[in-house]
Amino acid sequence: MEEVYNFNAGPAVLPKAVMLKAQEEFVNYHGIGYGIMEESHRNANFEEVINSCEANIRKLMGISDDYEVLFLQGGGSTQFAMVPMNLLIPGKKVGYCDTGEWSHKAMKEAKILGGDVELVYDGSACKYTAIGDASAWKINPDYAYVYMCCNNTIYGTEYQNYPQTGDVPLVADMSSDMMSRPVDVSKFGIIFAGAQKNIGPAGVTLVIIRKDLASRCPANIPTMFRYSTHIDKKSLFNTPPTFGIYMMRLVTDWLIGLGGIPAIQKLNEEKAAKLYAAIDGSNGFFRGTTAVADRSKMNVCFRIGEGDDALEKKFVAEAKAAGMVGVKGHRAVGGLRASISTQCRWQALKG
Amino acid sequence: MEEVYNFNAGPAVLPKAVMLKAQEEFVNYHGIGYGIMEESHRNANFEEVINSCEANIRKLMGISDDYEVLFLQGGGSTQFAMVPMNLLIPGKKVGYCDTGEWSHKAMKEAKILGGDVELVYDGSACKYTAIGDASAWKINPDYAYVYMCCNNTIYGTEYQNYPQTGDVPLVADMSSDMMSRPVDVSKFGIIFAGAQKNIGPAGVTLVIIRKDLASRCPANIPTMFRYSTHIDKKSLFNTPPTFGIYMMRLVTDWLIGLGGIPAIQKLNEEKAAKLYAAIDGSNGFFRGTTAVADRSKMNVCFRIGEGDDALEKKFVAEAKAAGMVGVKGHRAVGGLRASISTQCRWQALKG
Repeated sequence: MEEVYNFNAGPAVLPKAVMLKAQEEFVNYHGIGYGIMEESHRNANFEEVINSCEANIRKLMGISDDYEVLFLQGGGSTQFAMVPMNLLIPGKKVGYCDTGEWSHKAMKEAKILGGDVELVYDGSACKYTAIGDASAWKINPDYAYVYMCCNNTIYGTEYQNYPQTGDVPLVADMSSDMMSRPVDVSKFGIIFAGAQKNIGPAGVTLVIIRKDLASRCPANIPTMFRYSTHIDKKSLFNTPPTFGIYMMRLVTDWLIGLGGIPAIQKLNEEKAAKLYAAIDGSNGFFRGTTAVADRSKMNVCFRIGEGDDALEKKFVAEAKAAGMVGVKGHRAVGGLRASISTQCRWQALKG
Repeated sequence: MEEVYNFNAGPAVLPKAVMLKAQEEFVNYHGIGYGIMEESHRNANFEEVINSCEANIRKLMGISDDYEVLFLQGGGSTQFAMVPMNLLIPGKKVGYCDTGEWSHKAMKEAKILGGDVELVYDGSACKYTAIGDASAWKINPDYAYVYMCCNNTIYGTEYQNYPQTGDVPLVADMSSDMMSRPVDVSKFGIIFAGAQKNIGPAGVTLVIIRKDLASRCPANIPTMFRYSTHIDKKSLFNTPPTFGIYMMRLVTDWLIGLGGIPAIQKLNEEKAAKLYAAIDGSNGFFRGTTAVADRSKMNVCFRIGEGDDALEKKFVAEAKAAGMVGVKGHRAVGGLRASISTQCRWQALKG
């Protein structure tokens, strides 16, 4: 089998060791005679999977008992709605950063739901090529919550710092840099991530929520969209995406084996440094598209020259021929992009 | 590998041929060098998967261009909320049948969302052991919609007929008998099904919706919960559960190869007849728990005598020792249950 370097932004590559293990036990999980995909979510075999997955995540991220770890469906886009559905407080404003498509979409959902939204950062003026220092944001202490997107996959920016929000709960979309570096969970109200970029396949959303926040939800919010529903039932109110959770368990097993978050962070930094060095050392042939201080270690966005569409198309084709797929930029901005997430095969081969 | 007969209600067994094919190409899909789980949902490889899956479903069920076929997340429980979010009309009542836990939960969501709910059938009096003839329901022609659950997995009942709703859209939860028998889709407004019982793994929800109904949705419903969002973007508004859709494509390929819905219906009827004959021929040792006319061909619910807990526990243990797992009844009702869905290994071995 030919080895391919897969730079897709998400769904993204999974560690080779994880894929091979899942393949090996696909039709006969631990000798039970059928696959874990075919197992009841109420059976002990699956309970062990989901409990181990949660324990792995708590261990890797150092999550205290003040927080719940939930496995939901619907991706970040569903969280864009669930956050205001659960956390808006009538009469209070909410603070949103606008650092590109994903935070912009999240803000739109808050407005649909009646949220009185104030911008704590507006990146539209610089076309999202810079995001600034979040620790300098002025936070109104009366906000119901503050919302941020930590890494912007489309533009290739990533916050190096987090805002100081005091008693205002900080909600963070970490879909594209989850578990890529250490995070002090106690500084956040809610952290969520679609699994498909760093920690598993598409179809599972990891939500880490401070328990007390779940009680805010008004009575007219449907059962499935209340965090309290899933907290009360330990993510088993309804049938969860069982196979996706199983894959996330394998990925987190693998991360622990690798040495945990500090180990993956070191690899992530080395990878990103190598790519940015190649761009910066190309005498202007390649050009990074973001402010240097805001560069993402997950998604390296670049152009050929000032944006040579024809040459970029050729680059994508020749990269593919050389065994590197998925280096085309997001359709919203064009150009080139190498997504080098935690799961990237570079680590998988090393690890 | 030991063969096991898996009677789990859902997530349920998948056809063996499908599981083996998915295993074979798990780490290298069609020679691309990585798995379909690791492929971008915007790439041609996945587009082929989702388009083929939709084409298979349209072919199997004879779905006209008046309907959209959507691949969503969140299971039936999310549809319980999305249906009233999209279809309620201020000032109009809605009709719900109450045939057990699932329709009851759906009704609850309609009420949370302000729906003025009228019961078109109330099964609570007989403890859901009978569901009656739906074609005899009196439907108020001014209802915004009528809602039913076609097969009740917990109680083991299944409608043999559908109501005559005229111009009132009929919404049907077919999670547990989807594609098990022919259905005239043109009689329905919305049909939905969590995949995990009959047509794939947990984490994908199939929704078939008459296009005109999507325009009813009020402006204050979040983007992800509007059917129109997913219609406009062909289920690719956000990252869909790609691997689950791939599995559903394989299951529908397999169903077509088997001879389509009429072929699986014949097998389903044979299986159910065999089980009910064993129960009815046991001289009262086993006892079916539902009205004979309402017996489900998907979930055969029975007791030992009038409900001998100790003997039933022994039965479950001895069945497992004999290679038959998942025959315990739902925790809400106890007793015994054999879920013999479309995917059941009996067919898989035959097919």
